[in-house]
Amino acid sequence: MEFSGKHAIVNGRLVEATEAALSVQDRELQYGFGVYESLRIIQGTLVYPLEHIDRLFYSADGIGLRHAFTHESVYHWLNQLIAADKIEEASIRILLMGGVDARLFITASPLLAYPESFYSEGIKTVSYEGERLLPQYKTCSLLMNYLALRHAGTQGAFEALLVDRRKLVLEGTRSNLFVCKNTTVYTAPSSDVLEGVTRDKILKAVGELGYTVVFEAPSYADICAGVYDELFISSTSMGALPVASFDNFVFPEIGTIAHPIHALIRQWEVNALH
Amino acid sequence: MEFSGKHAIVNGRLVEATEAALSVQDRELQYGFGVYESLRIIQGTLVYPLEHIDRLFYSADGIGLRHAFTHESVYHWLNQLIAADKIEEASIRILLMGGVDARLFITASPLLAYPESFYSEGIKTVSYEGERLLPQYKTCSLLMNYLALRHAGTQGAFEALLVDRRKLVLEGTRSNLFVCKNTTVYTAPSSDVLEGVTRDKILKAVGELGYTVVFEAPSYADICAGVYDELFISSTSMGALPVASFDNFVFPEIGTIAHPIHALIRQWEVNALH
Repeated sequence: MEFSGKHAIVNGRLVEATEAALSVQDRELQYGFGVYESLRIIQGTLVYPLEHIDRLFYSADGIGLRHAFTHESVYHWLNQLIAADKIEEASIRILLMGGVDARLFITASPLLAYPESFYSEGIKTVSYEGERLLPQYKTCSLLMNYLALRHAGTQGAFEALLVDRRKLVLEGTRSNLFVCKNTTVYTAPSSDVLEGVTRDKILKAVGELGYTVVFEAPSYADICAGVYDELFISSTSMGALPVASFDNFVFPEIGTIAHPIHALIRQWEVNALH
Repeated sequence: MEFSGKHAIVNGRLVEATEAALSVQDRELQYGFGVYESLRIIQGTLVYPLEHIDRLFYSADGIGLRHAFTHESVYHWLNQLIAADKIEEASIRILLMGGVDARLFITASPLLAYPESFYSEGIKTVSYEGERLLPQYKTCSLLMNYLALRHAGTQGAFEALLVDRRKLVLEGTRSNLFVCKNTTVYTAPSSDVLEGVTRDKILKAVGELGYTVVFEAPSYADICAGVYDELFISSTSMGALPVASFDNFVFPEIGTIAHPIHALIRQWEVNALH
């Protein structure tokens, strides 16, 4: 049955989706004191739910957001929402807002997926100077990401890759980043970026496929000088998505390493359902 | 009559205050793509409404937030809310969220005011390393401010003063900052900080009272070495509020310059009502 999105979960209560709202007078909304996770439902089943709940609570701990929610209850509520709306496929967002009484919202929206051409041809990216606050945690502090992504849109690009004050390219606005040279895959140290669930799977796939991982962020200058053959980005909804160009630089390889990684991590997801 | 706060204005419509809410699925809420202003109502009248509306639209322009709201209509809606709830005294917040359809919320809460002892004795402050994104604009990107303010609270301090990567002290989490040496008042260049309505009045008062302004942010080291006699912070609700201590440094002067400035800007506010 088609996904309907009629309901949401607010603090464990199944409610009409329209009730998943925050007052504009809410102090934590005003300050953006919250963390979130996005996950996928395919074949009526959650993909890596426990890892995403872990990741959510890790982000909460990281910013000192106290709450009394448990893995068990969040997992139960996720399944309650799937059952209530008979969801087969969807993107799920869990939002945990802090405050005197922490609040947890679970909402569903149509599954975010990208055209096959994005994978075969690669996508266009541009640079944006900016650093995320507390990069290890998935917080509501996302205005810079919004502005960077809007800038990318005005350039006809799909994603902006963030360049920090050291001129290193760490991650995208909603993605992790990997560059490849021969059979070595380079990516920023985990302490500098968001250690998402999909990034973790990609790193495992890199090892599984016999490539070498080096935890070093590429510099803007090196990428544009052609030091790397290939660049790809990753997220829960993207998997491993090849990049065709970054600013004016066009990569000689599209997907040589990203395609087998993408296929493997999507296969693992399906395996994990059963 | 006492402030009741029953109503709010949403896009020009007078609604129950509870209806001033945003869906957690709202993309601009998720990214914090919005700007805001806080202003005061005293004696049933708005304090500097046009300047605050100007400031709101300046922030919106600064982050490329497009909207079709006008000074006239926002001013009219502010007065409509005052009339509906017969407000004599209140703090008002205008929140302008971007997106395909920009949305404007006006809400009222009890007037934020501080005990007289805060002014006579000065308040305690601590340092916090952090830089605001787009400091000139009053945006919803406030997580760092929240964390800094919480840190201050755990130290028994009223405000955290933000130290940037150059080790300059630019502003507080919700205030501007001024340091004094003899009759000279130092503050960060306007391009580095939030140029609030009250900051502007303070700068006028500094001139009016015969002090000299120098647009240079003090360094953390200089403040703690005792280079300045006095430090005060400012905001719409604080006016000019003297600081007794910053980390371990205790200021020799409390309010010598801040008190006359505070009295003058509050007098101007009352004059402006009539």
